[in-house]
Amino acid sequence: MRIGVLGTGMVGQAIATKLVQLGHEVRMGSRQAGNEHAVAWAGTAGEGASEGSFADAAAFGELIVHCTAGMHSLAALGEAGVANLAGKVLIDLANPLDFSGGMPPTLAVSNTDSLGEQIQSTFPNTKVVKSLNTMNCQLMVDPASVSGDHVVFVAGEDGGAKQQVSDLLQSFGWPPHRIVDLGGIRAARGTEMYLPLWLNLFGALGTGHFNIGLMHAEA
Amino acid sequence: MRIGVLGTGMVGQAIATKLVQLGHEVRMGSRQAGNEHAVAWAGTAGEGASEGSFADAAAFGELIVHCTAGMHSLAALGEAGVANLAGKVLIDLANPLDFSGGMPPTLAVSNTDSLGEQIQSTFPNTKVVKSLNTMNCQLMVDPASVSGDHVVFVAGEDGGAKQQVSDLLQSFGWPPHRIVDLGGIRAARGTEMYLPLWLNLFGALGTGHFNIGLMHAEA
Repeated sequence: MRIGVLGTGMVGQAIATKLVQLGHEVRMGSRQAGNEHAVAWAGTAGEGASEGSFADAAAFGELIVHCTAGMHSLAALGEAGVANLAGKVLIDLANPLDFSGGMPPTLAVSNTDSLGEQIQSTFPNTKVVKSLNTMNCQLMVDPASVSGDHVVFVAGEDGGAKQQVSDLLQSFGWPPHRIVDLGGIRAARGTEMYLPLWLNLFGALGTGHFNIGLMHAEA
Repeated sequence: MRIGVLGTGMVGQAIATKLVQLGHEVRMGSRQAGNEHAVAWAGTAGEGASEGSFADAAAFGELIVHCTAGMHSLAALGEAGVANLAGKVLIDLANPLDFSGGMPPTLAVSNTDSLGEQIQSTFPNTKVVKSLNTMNCQLMVDPASVSGDHVVFVAGEDGGAKQQVSDLLQSFGWPPHRIVDLGGIRAARGTEMYLPLWLNLFGALGTGHFNIGLMHAEA
């Protein structure tokens, strides 16, 4: 299918590359068409790869993957355009990490709201599904690179949209039993607020190439 | 050893009971000596169990386990008394859950601060170790009740204090490789901010009797 990937950073590149490998037509969007990272990616990623502005990529995609830096996400999505996003599923991978106070970052929004909820409320005709924001980008597209039953979360208001995202995640290599539906978009709060613990674990483990699994007694 | 357990709720009762079973002398503290839950516990928990005020329990304990509800923790610890807590290790199990806005709760402090940090800064001569606040109380004292390599975190400024807490956790049944040192007390922010995700997972799994494990590539 035609997919618009918003963002040219490590996450956008990893996702866009995987999508092209899976046979999708992918347009990478950035603030201005001709962004050097996007041009370099489109020139090497293979057949079906193209680049353009946020609006170009959003108009092109039947499905949107949102990978911009969280502090700039609402501005970037505003440039993508309400009409270009309307009626579509948008997978939101962003975290509202605020580095302005130094390391480690804090969250620009948390506790009583979340970036995922802000995106959903700003674009009410778009079906926002929060997912993949709890791990590094290598693991997103290559879950088998870490062994064990580690998990990926989905959260959003629309069941059909979550099913479509689940199908895409399965094409990335995520088995269905490791795709955990947390409920409505409010659960984006939980997965975004996990980031400080993720950063602590990065420090404790000495690698960002890790994930969490769930262990429980039978309910 | 002599241990003061502050708090008479489910967490305090589970911890205090386990500690008595392990042969410790345990005094459960509450706002007023003679609290009915504490008296009932002390009457049935076995030899070495007693109860009293927060100050009684804090004075009694060579080690303090803090299990009060997060919204009241600083007040309760104030009643316990700076002098009674000075020079001691305090294991902080509390989460600053604020139910005043309904369910699910938000956090009364988060993102730029944490309850663990507030306790450490309010009681600078006490060695605060944040631990066990990421799971339900059954699992705290009976980790084998859920199979798999799920983990418990410790965070605090004093390495010796963390070692003492690790030893206590091992006596509860936590193997050393599943006790993860997240660093200084600031990491309490990460484990407290995990609570919203924990609540989402409770809903998704249909049980609170679960925990997370870490899976990673070798660093």
